[in-house]
Amino acid sequence: MNPVRVALLGCGTVGADVVRLLNEQAADLTARIGAPLQLVGIAVRRPARDRGDLPVDPALFTTDALDLVKRDDVDIVVEVVGGIEPARTWLVEALHRGKSVVTANKALLAEDGPTLHQAAVDGRADLYYEASVAGAIPLLRPLRESLHGDRITRVTGIVNGTTNFILSSMDATGAGFSEALDEATALGYAEADPTADVEGFDAAAKAAILASLAFHTRIRAADVYREGITEVSAADVASAKAMGCTIKLLCLAERSGDAVSVRVHPAMIPRTHPLASVSDAFNAVFVEAEAAGQLMFYGRGAGGAPTASAVLGDIVAVARNRLAGVRAASESAYADLRVRPIGEATTRYHISLDVSDRAGVLAAVAGVFAKHGVSIATVHQSGRGNEAVLVIVTHRAKDAALAATVAELRSLDIVRSVASVLRVEGE
Amino acid sequence: MNPVRVALLGCGTVGADVVRLLNEQAADLTARIGAPLQLVGIAVRRPARDRGDLPVDPALFTTDALDLVKRDDVDIVVEVVGGIEPARTWLVEALHRGKSVVTANKALLAEDGPTLHQAAVDGRADLYYEASVAGAIPLLRPLRESLHGDRITRVTGIVNGTTNFILSSMDATGAGFSEALDEATALGYAEADPTADVEGFDAAAKAAILASLAFHTRIRAADVYREGITEVSAADVASAKAMGCTIKLLCLAERSGDAVSVRVHPAMIPRTHPLASVSDAFNAVFVEAEAAGQLMFYGRGAGGAPTASAVLGDIVAVARNRLAGVRAASESAYADLRVRPIGEATTRYHISLDVSDRAGVLAAVAGVFAKHGVSIATVHQSGRGNEAVLVIVTHRAKDAALAATVAELRSLDIVRSVASVLRVEGE
Repeated sequence: MNPVRVALLGCGTVGADVVRLLNEQAADLTARIGAPLQLVGIAVRRPARDRGDLPVDPALFTTDALDLVKRDDVDIVVEVVGGIEPARTWLVEALHRGKSVVTANKALLAEDGPTLHQAAVDGRADLYYEASVAGAIPLLRPLRESLHGDRITRVTGIVNGTTNFILSSMDATGAGFSEALDEATALGYAEADPTADVEGFDAAAKAAILASLAFHTRIRAADVYREGITEVSAADVASAKAMGCTIKLLCLAERSGDAVSVRVHPAMIPRTHPLASVSDAFNAVFVEAEAAGQLMFYGRGAGGAPTASAVLGDIVAVARNRLAGVRAASESAYADLRVRPIGEATTRYHISLDVSDRAGVLAAVAGVFAKHGVSIATVHQSGRGNEAVLVIVTHRAKDAALAATVAELRSLDIVRSVASVLRVEGE
Repeated sequence: MNPVRVALLGCGTVGADVVRLLNEQAADLTARIGAPLQLVGIAVRRPARDRGDLPVDPALFTTDALDLVKRDDVDIVVEVVGGIEPARTWLVEALHRGKSVVTANKALLAEDGPTLHQAAVDGRADLYYEASVAGAIPLLRPLRESLHGDRITRVTGIVNGTTNFILSSMDATGAGFSEALDEATALGYAEADPTADVEGFDAAAKAAILASLAFHTRIRAADVYREGITEVSAADVASAKAMGCTIKLLCLAERSGDAVSVRVHPAMIPRTHPLASVSDAFNAVFVEAEAAGQLMFYGRGAGGAPTASAVLGDIVAVARNRLAGVRAASESAYADLRVRPIGEATTRYHISLDVSDRAGVLAAVAGVFAKHGVSIATVHQSGRGNEAVLVIVTHRAKDAALAATVAELRSLDIVRSVASVLRVEGE
């Protein structure tokens, strides 16, 4: 039986685990595919680098990725490099030549997915990317296939392990953001430059991919409203606890009518919500669909072996497709939905105000909410000397109305400061 | 565009929701498939039955299911009747004629899956059955496809909503089994004859299907060791609580070496285990794989709409395959693993003994465990008058050794009775 020939682009943590699994599981993979997989080339920046006991022939290494994807003896291109360029050039070239592509590159898919999908159509090739969102969790295939007879209304996910580790740590120890970030860095959960994680860029890319699949439309990273967790304070975490909540960096994608809202921001969720108990570096995605009801998918969102598991699952699928002479269904973007700006999204706010402790403060504050049509759910007032703290939780309202309310509160003389503003979700 | 023509066998709760979804989602389904779905016949026992506002032409009803599946104008046969015969005859006939089959029939798949799979190969037709296990939860497709690059080591599931409702109720209220069953019956969670659920037959069928997919081997319902929940007492539930555990009816499928152990029985699991918080009629399946690590899939395991969601997802998949002129990969049973008898499975026991309160009892009891090579993890002794209760939790051991230990304990004079024996899992 002729082997199915695989070129690997990148051999870092994930790539090395892909090589190991290809080796260790060779007999099972052959049985499942119906032909052996053969690794025919690995593109890396530094071929001479010490790769420990990686079971691979050094002759397979090359620095010329573009040349590798063009080779006639390559059937499947697996990309675990990341970033927009040169990955895009390599993958478009591979797809145009009819080679199947398996990628974990969320940034590229979220930035310019349509270009890749079009190249797959043009080359009549497969484009699989299960590993791009939530690592090992089988999530994209269920969204792409299992739920195709249903109508998904909302996807709520914890899809970034670094920020979930930091927020879990703040929740458990009362630490502030900087302290928790330092711990995450020391333990290897955060990168030296943690910007992509803590500012929500990584989660926003994954939100764009999830929303595109869930709603059969095109959402790019630029369509996703994004706030990171750098402003989340120990006081916010304490406030959340007092409300029976915990703070998570959520990605939320909601459909209403012919529009979708996609956003990434920290939010309080009740401790009774299934996502509340997803701690440390685990990921989970909660999906709500009209007929299926509530579903949750949980597992490891990052790491070499879990991500490699997802990559290998895709390799098996595209290898089978090649042997059967077929390709998977193309991108499904027929719904072509409008993207709602964040102001149109509905959410609830939790607002802490430091106010002058004098008669009439509550009436004045309540008047601002009423003026913007925002209904208050609960108010807690506590005072010390001539200062008081008002903690207000609203009912659901448009984000624009909530933001305008906060802006006006900041301008009131009786409001010394707006100590914190957090959205509340999951209720 | 020519429609893809669907015949429906059965129009009970699930069938009616399939009809509703086909109707409500028609535009989306057409866009996702690339052609419209057309319902061309519905086989039922009583065509004249009042079906409320079901949006269907009464002329579509027939009592002759076999004739319906033979019709040339049928492309896809959807079976939601259940049971072994006549469903097997209908589906084999359909598959032999090259028609794609979507079924929710766990009993048939677990009893005689190989016959259906062979008929699918012979007829070059698709056989999909996502709805047969855990209702709306996309579970079989992830096992069949997403995890194909990995090696699954264990599957632990709560896959029967009726028993989970009963056990959740016993845990919450302290009620006994009969009382909780009556409540479940009154609320419609248990059928008039609850045998299939409470004796574990339903869960055993699902365990067989899950184990077959997870381990690429053939497991039939008869291979599954099975104990129901009728013997679980309020005292057992209280004992579990005292240990920080809750009792669940688990389906467990484990691979070690070239053998698998598949069993369904009530077990104590720690309240900190992700499955412990799966309550009422929800289902969840916990999957452990070498590279992926721990994964969990959670959602509604039964009910018309959730099950119909899974059926529709399969209909979309097989309709697309037909239009593309392809069929999905056949049954993967290459591993051909031996089934371990229950005695070879390893587990832990929680044992409550009523004993004579006299010196030497603990030594005598401990001697029995030692004789059978079973290591004790904890002992709690409490006494009243000249009676005492010993609660013993073992370390992991072969089930046969544990069972032999219990049998010998029963024969001791100093043991008045063995009050309860429960397995402990999830640690």
